[in-house]
Amino acid sequence: METILRDGEKIDIIPGSNYKIIQNRGKFSYGTDAILLSNFSKIKIDSTGLDLGTGTGIIPLFLCSRYSPKKVYGIEIQEEVADMASRSVKMNNLGEQIEILNMDLKNLPEIFKSGQFQFVTSNPPYMKGGGGIVNERDNFAISRHEIACSLEDIVRTASYLLCQGGKFFMVHRPHRLVDIIWLLRKYNLEPKSIQFVHPKYDEKPNILLIMSMKGGKSELKFQKPLYVYNHDGTYTDEIYKIYGMDVENKNG
Amino acid sequence: METILRDGEKIDIIPGSNYKIIQNRGKFSYGTDAILLSNFSKIKIDSTGLDLGTGTGIIPLFLCSRYSPKKVYGIEIQEEVADMASRSVKMNNLGEQIEILNMDLKNLPEIFKSGQFQFVTSNPPYMKGGGGIVNERDNFAISRHEIACSLEDIVRTASYLLCQGGKFFMVHRPHRLVDIIWLLRKYNLEPKSIQFVHPKYDEKPNILLIMSMKGGKSELKFQKPLYVYNHDGTYTDEIYKIYGMDVENKNG
Repeated sequence: METILRDGEKIDIIPGSNYKIIQNRGKFSYGTDAILLSNFSKIKIDSTGLDLGTGTGIIPLFLCSRYSPKKVYGIEIQEEVADMASRSVKMNNLGEQIEILNMDLKNLPEIFKSGQFQFVTSNPPYMKGGGGIVNERDNFAISRHEIACSLEDIVRTASYLLCQGGKFFMVHRPHRLVDIIWLLRKYNLEPKSIQFVHPKYDEKPNILLIMSMKGGKSELKFQKPLYVYNHDGTYTDEIYKIYGMDVENKNG
Repeated sequence: METILRDGEKIDIIPGSNYKIIQNRGKFSYGTDAILLSNFSKIKIDSTGLDLGTGTGIIPLFLCSRYSPKKVYGIEIQEEVADMASRSVKMNNLGEQIEILNMDLKNLPEIFKSGQFQFVTSNPPYMKGGGGIVNERDNFAISRHEIACSLEDIVRTASYLLCQGGKFFMVHRPHRLVDIIWLLRKYNLEPKSIQFVHPKYDEKPNILLIMSMKGGKSELKFQKPLYVYNHDGTYTDEIYKIYGMDVENKNG
């Protein structure tokens, strides 16, 4: 099957898999956070879920490379990147397992019934909307700031879509921890597992990974901290494993 | 001044100070958590505050050894340990700065007006009340389980007592993080600073230190993680510093 690449686009390999993904370095490309979230999101075989704000589709593609979900919907409001994600799905012949929907996630209740999904993932915009410096390039701004949707929109929508016991996996920034926990509990998504990611072991965390469960009981489990770099600036063994690289041959 | 010691009691030095404290190893003695909280609680000169559930009085005594608060009230419901704390205060000639009140913290609104304190500290019972295994020795149970008061009682009381901008410093267990954040925000005590304490750098945190501010804005700052032990089982330099020991001469 022929894959059409548009101006500025290139094809990359998804870490630890044979799947490929279309990226556009100047405009749309995934970051470490999406890989860390995909790795953190343990989903069951044959389960059905959604990725809210899927961008290039990296998370649905990664999940299909590691697990065997029945179906993952990737929801993306920006037409240009939604089109890139759709072409990546076709390129990998994953049309049965992944469907990209170019729509506003706030409208999902119009097409899906409440409680019909087992998992939801999201790597949402981190910056609070309404104020602050917004990048002049619109597509960057929408991906990074709460312009098209707020954190509350995402949490409310995840709660609506999930069945009882369904899991919501999210990556975010530690300084928003209080808002995150407050909103999750407000929408009956009880935080059950949390992991902090630190650049180095003696530095503050700069990424948080959190799993909450629809209707879950109150009891939060901490995972061991994840450190990205060793003191000499090389990646840690954990990062090599997440990126699907052989730790033994990491210098090879 | 003569200090009366009762059966099983002994006098210890408070880390990094010349102050002394009466402890009873079999029944009432302070733990690492109280020292970590005292060190985490940065209070202003001439400020007035309270320690809720003061036990042996270690936190008021430690605060007076490092800062110069105008007055710290230590609130303790158990008569026997409140009496020990009062004798420790007298032994150090700190009667002007520290007053131990043997009472239920839930009754504090009967004797103090709302908003009259600049700081509150608490090292509360960690275990949820109403169920679970409770230690047969009552004094241990009251110190460790939410029998005499719940986490919500403590947070509500701290919020009542603090002035706008006043600070509430608490030590607790990470698995209660969601309850802690939910209750703090519910009672208008916005979490502003958090630090996790890990036994070793590659282990999960087992203690959390959190500072919240009455009426504060939403923005949580993470502190660098604190590790208690090095890989060889010796204490880290940070722990030596907190305990007021000279890092250079730690082996001396």
